[in-house]
Amino acid sequence: MLVAIPLFDRFTALDAVGPYEVLCRLPGAEITFVGERTGPVRTDTAMLAITVDARLDEIDACDVVVVPGGPGTRAMLEPGPLHEWVARMHEGTRWTTSVCTGSLILGTAGLLRGLDATTHWAAMGELAPLCGATTGSRIVPHPEQRIVTAAGVSSGIDMALWLAAQIAGDDVARAIQLGIEYDPQPPFDAGSPAKAGPELVELLAGMVIDRQPAAG
Amino acid sequence: MLVAIPLFDRFTALDAVGPYEVLCRLPGAEITFVGERTGPVRTDTAMLAITVDARLDEIDACDVVVVPGGPGTRAMLEPGPLHEWVARMHEGTRWTTSVCTGSLILGTAGLLRGLDATTHWAAMGELAPLCGATTGSRIVPHPEQRIVTAAGVSSGIDMALWLAAQIAGDDVARAIQLGIEYDPQPPFDAGSPAKAGPELVELLAGMVIDRQPAAG
Repeated sequence: MLVAIPLFDRFTALDAVGPYEVLCRLPGAEITFVGERTGPVRTDTAMLAITVDARLDEIDACDVVVVPGGPGTRAMLEPGPLHEWVARMHEGTRWTTSVCTGSLILGTAGLLRGLDATTHWAAMGELAPLCGATTGSRIVPHPEQRIVTAAGVSSGIDMALWLAAQIAGDDVARAIQLGIEYDPQPPFDAGSPAKAGPELVELLAGMVIDRQPAAG
Repeated sequence: MLVAIPLFDRFTALDAVGPYEVLCRLPGAEITFVGERTGPVRTDTAMLAITVDARLDEIDACDVVVVPGGPGTRAMLEPGPLHEWVARMHEGTRWTTSVCTGSLILGTAGLLRGLDATTHWAAMGELAPLCGATTGSRIVPHPEQRIVTAAGVSSGIDMALWLAAQIAGDDVARAIQLGIEYDPQPPFDAGSPAKAGPELVELLAGMVIDRQPAAG
């Protein structure tokens, strides 16, 4: 079973690595990081690079696609090679999935027409015109269309466990959860705007602006 | 503030990338992946490579060290360059930390003598002779010694949020949690041996054996 994870400049690392760490433990799974060119691709912070091992045009078909998000998705709001590849893969996948603003790629590829979908909470307005309706759910599966979108960054771990269960059964998915000791105990409960409140949303917005290379 | 994350052959990706994704969002933080040689380093599955951007000997001092774990730690049970580097960094760090079997590196470097410490649940027996006592806690902080060990793989996210709060205050840590939408909703509750039960522990053991390249 081939799982392809496309990378692009300024992707968000955990969007890709969370699902990788779950799905690589599925018996018989092979994960390949793909992109327009082989070699290292830098994340949104430029402080981490993951290697692309295969070009998009080298992958004719795969079983699962996981499209990560990140600021780099905003440079791909018009259809291009990645969207074409995702649409072509989707003809044969068991599951075509996204994490965070990876859903903007699925949407621009035309895969979310008429479907409920999700993304990072701060990007709902960008996703809205590309799908049927946005939802705040952490995982939005459409088994008939073989499409799953997940919410921001860390939600890819939850999505991948759900996916593992669809592919290999609940017990294998639970064994993988045990293997990565995913027994979350965050020291705070601020993982959504509703839980965090407007003051933390504002604090975060300032931190994100400070983090842009142009402003730093 | 410099955060150094050492990589080595057959590390576990999420051990490193979970803390990276949290700590890179700390205002003013710079994260550098370090290793014996620069260039790509493969994870335990060989299906993912992260680039080492600086050699160990190029880093004279740093503020935070995060040592990931993985099967590769078992090739470093005798003191070597990484242990020497960790011990030298620890003289000047604000926090020296580990995720999963990264604690075996801290232990072999002599940093856990007389201290409670933790690791992946399946590696407690290996850690025991290298520390004061093992504990099943997800995060084991020793503020006086500036050392934190965390449990298996995904626990690095919880540990890094705790660390972010120590460094920049609770509100910044909570804003980071919001930024990565860390509002965990795993589809199952099997993240520890106690919750998963002995049958899943056995199922996982079989899956791990199947995954070893020598057996596959």
